[in-house]
Amino acid sequence: MSSIAEYLEENAKRFESELCELLRIPSVSAESAHKGDVAQAADWMKNRFESLGFEAELLQVGEGHPIVYAESPPVEGAPTVLVYGHYDVQPPDPLDLWISPPFEPTVRNGSLFARGATDDKGQMLTHFFSAQAWLEVRDRLPVNLKYVIEGEEEVGSGSLETLLEESPERLECDCIVVSDTSQFAPGQPSITYGLRGIVAFELKLTGPNTDLHSGTFGGAVTNPANALAKMIASLADEGGRVTIPGFYDDILPMSEAEQNQLALLPFEEKQFFASVGVEDAFGESGFTTLERRTSRPTLDINGITSGYQGEGTKTIIPSWASAKITCRLVPEQDPVKIGEALQEMLDEACPPGIKLELDRGHASQGVVVPLESPYIEAAASAIEYAFGRSPVFTREGGSIPIIAAMHRKLGADVLLVGWGQNDDNLHAPNEKFNLVDFHRGIKASARLWRELSKIDLEG
Amino acid sequence: MSSIAEYLEENAKRFESELCELLRIPSVSAESAHKGDVAQAADWMKNRFESLGFEAELLQVGEGHPIVYAESPPVEGAPTVLVYGHYDVQPPDPLDLWISPPFEPTVRNGSLFARGATDDKGQMLTHFFSAQAWLEVRDRLPVNLKYVIEGEEEVGSGSLETLLEESPERLECDCIVVSDTSQFAPGQPSITYGLRGIVAFELKLTGPNTDLHSGTFGGAVTNPANALAKMIASLADEGGRVTIPGFYDDILPMSEAEQNQLALLPFEEKQFFASVGVEDAFGESGFTTLERRTSRPTLDINGITSGYQGEGTKTIIPSWASAKITCRLVPEQDPVKIGEALQEMLDEACPPGIKLELDRGHASQGVVVPLESPYIEAAASAIEYAFGRSPVFTREGGSIPIIAAMHRKLGADVLLVGWGQNDDNLHAPNEKFNLVDFHRGIKASARLWRELSKIDLEG
Repeated sequence: MSSIAEYLEENAKRFESELCELLRIPSVSAESAHKGDVAQAADWMKNRFESLGFEAELLQVGEGHPIVYAESPPVEGAPTVLVYGHYDVQPPDPLDLWISPPFEPTVRNGSLFARGATDDKGQMLTHFFSAQAWLEVRDRLPVNLKYVIEGEEEVGSGSLETLLEESPERLECDCIVVSDTSQFAPGQPSITYGLRGIVAFELKLTGPNTDLHSGTFGGAVTNPANALAKMIASLADEGGRVTIPGFYDDILPMSEAEQNQLALLPFEEKQFFASVGVEDAFGESGFTTLERRTSRPTLDINGITSGYQGEGTKTIIPSWASAKITCRLVPEQDPVKIGEALQEMLDEACPPGIKLELDRGHASQGVVVPLESPYIEAAASAIEYAFGRSPVFTREGGSIPIIAAMHRKLGADVLLVGWGQNDDNLHAPNEKFNLVDFHRGIKASARLWRELSKIDLEG
Repeated sequence: MSSIAEYLEENAKRFESELCELLRIPSVSAESAHKGDVAQAADWMKNRFESLGFEAELLQVGEGHPIVYAESPPVEGAPTVLVYGHYDVQPPDPLDLWISPPFEPTVRNGSLFARGATDDKGQMLTHFFSAQAWLEVRDRLPVNLKYVIEGEEEVGSGSLETLLEESPERLECDCIVVSDTSQFAPGQPSITYGLRGIVAFELKLTGPNTDLHSGTFGGAVTNPANALAKMIASLADEGGRVTIPGFYDDILPMSEAEQNQLALLPFEEKQFFASVGVEDAFGESGFTTLERRTSRPTLDINGITSGYQGEGTKTIIPSWASAKITCRLVPEQDPVKIGEALQEMLDEACPPGIKLELDRGHASQGVVVPLESPYIEAAASAIEYAFGRSPVFTREGGSIPIIAAMHRKLGADVLLVGWGQNDDNLHAPNEKFNLVDFHRGIKASARLWRELSKIDLEG
């Protein structure tokens, strides 16, 4: 393996310069003015894969941005690894806050500044350069590699969702590798082994057919705003537990190994809350803040709208009231089952004179990869080799629906190995990627292919 | 008295034409462009009072529109009656919905159409023409009359509130007469013997110093929107009773006479609810819809604002949530005491990580005049004489803060004797006043002076 390490050192500048090539293409998927740039970035990726001798193609789904799909030549008996990434980027606005222009990559203090540097062009390419290293040094790869690099991650992954639904066999694999998250802290790499799912609802209560005078009608009709408050309030008890029947029934409890890992994580609770101006923690009783944020489900009101919202007073009974609700879910909670239980619960609670509508929005299930998985072991070993420190294992409180969908549909473990830092300014001006992390990422990826190749697929 | 009745008949056209004079002055108090018109209407009124030999003046409070104040020559030993009314009108918009122009009074189907016809120029002037009749037929009045005709009723009665606070002695009286409400139904006159009071609050809960990502923070911090819903929900029980401690303690129960009167009122409950698209009644248990609307206090949410209100989903924990709340009050509930109890209750319920602000807005107490009051008896008798039918006795669910303030400050019974109809289009296009009602109103007013003169002030 030493020759691969040498190769990576010798070619470090070349990797940086190739990354800069891609960063110069303003592949902003959300803006139709950049449609050509998005296509150019896809072409660039396809060409790079072809330069390795991979079968590469652009998959066009409907009117969407193309998905770059590539496969390495077959390696008999070895696991198949699906690398997921995206070549599209967030819009760069507000432009005047950038120190150097977003599409002119610039190095300052050891970091490369550009839109997409860490999210996700820089991180994604580490898995390309690692394959290139194997091929140039060893003439062969130790595993089968499939790449699915989409151009719509920042706008909802519509094309990839369709592909996954219609042709899941193309994406068949033993594990999925993704670098689109961050390390736990500077110098402390991590493996994200869990993501929360999500289910969104919109609840609307309609009472009278118009706002009513609260003098003439007050006391005699159900006020939709009062009723909405009562319904929302009934969704959680005093201990912060969600009261939707069966809500907690299907949850996979944390394993002992998970509990032990969680206990190892450095977490400054006071500082965490102080950073957002919150004085006291609150959440489901019986769980720590870290557990509540990552491994327990939630029910949050994201918005409420009813009646008069201007200055002063308007003495009305509002005609209607609505609330936006999202639950973060953990494995194996089922958004459909929860939606049905919520509907039933609210229907029962609906007071006289009120018409209730509950719409379910987007939904995705939670993901958790068992810490005992050999894929996790392989990733941990590769990261320790490249970063000089063993990773911590974390679950994310957020949701990445396309990852959850691939995990479910393909029945494969997901390895979320993030090389970025929490302060890399994703989706903000002055996005950056530390070059040391970039090169460690390539090194870890190259080692990961070796570690994964050792896994006994029959075992 | 027959000669007064004859006089009224003979002068009917003159009364109508004088009312039209006043209606032609567009005294819209809300619009500064009409400031001169408002002043002209005040002058017109003052001149009319002077033509009766009354002491009349324009009281100017600060920058406000003038109050027309007039006093009849003293009548020794007779009660003093304060007539309240207003010469300002609502803006006439939308103009294109008027069949005839708002400030060109036009008779159609026996009704006079113009802005202010019923609210309040037409109703108010009945009490002027009745005095004129007494003076021209009998050369004297049977009671002392004071008139306070303000020009700011449609914009909050600021000047009159100040006058009442600073010089209540000017307004000293034995009873207050107001015609600024409606009859119960066509052909069924009424005396409004009660008004609800009101107290307004704005509750704001602030959590984190910015909207938070519901994935990263969900479950670990108190969500202000969830907390607001819980607080609002706690303000009423399942039976629709307000749970603010002491809320019901000071309520004057309805007298047996009131109960009996209420039972006499024709009320089509189904039709009432159908007209606003509400299928079922709901309110404080143990009371009828009519009681709930008029004689029982309420707590209504008038508006709620929190977080994301646009289309679709935004997965945030909102930084803050607020609600506008008004309670309708009945005698002798005290808005200050209720505000303090509410503050204490909410402070106790405030969850960790939330800052609570409760602002009290405007407040006025409820009014109820005992049905046994000799003033009520006098008014009932006068109305029966003029309308050929005895009035029903009703309490209004709404609030007229300036009336409540005069009632409290002056310690005088209020006689709300409305000559209008419920479909007179107050505050709407095509406002009208039935001319038969106008003339009956003058006749009732003239009779009222006589009936009131019989009251033994020492008794």
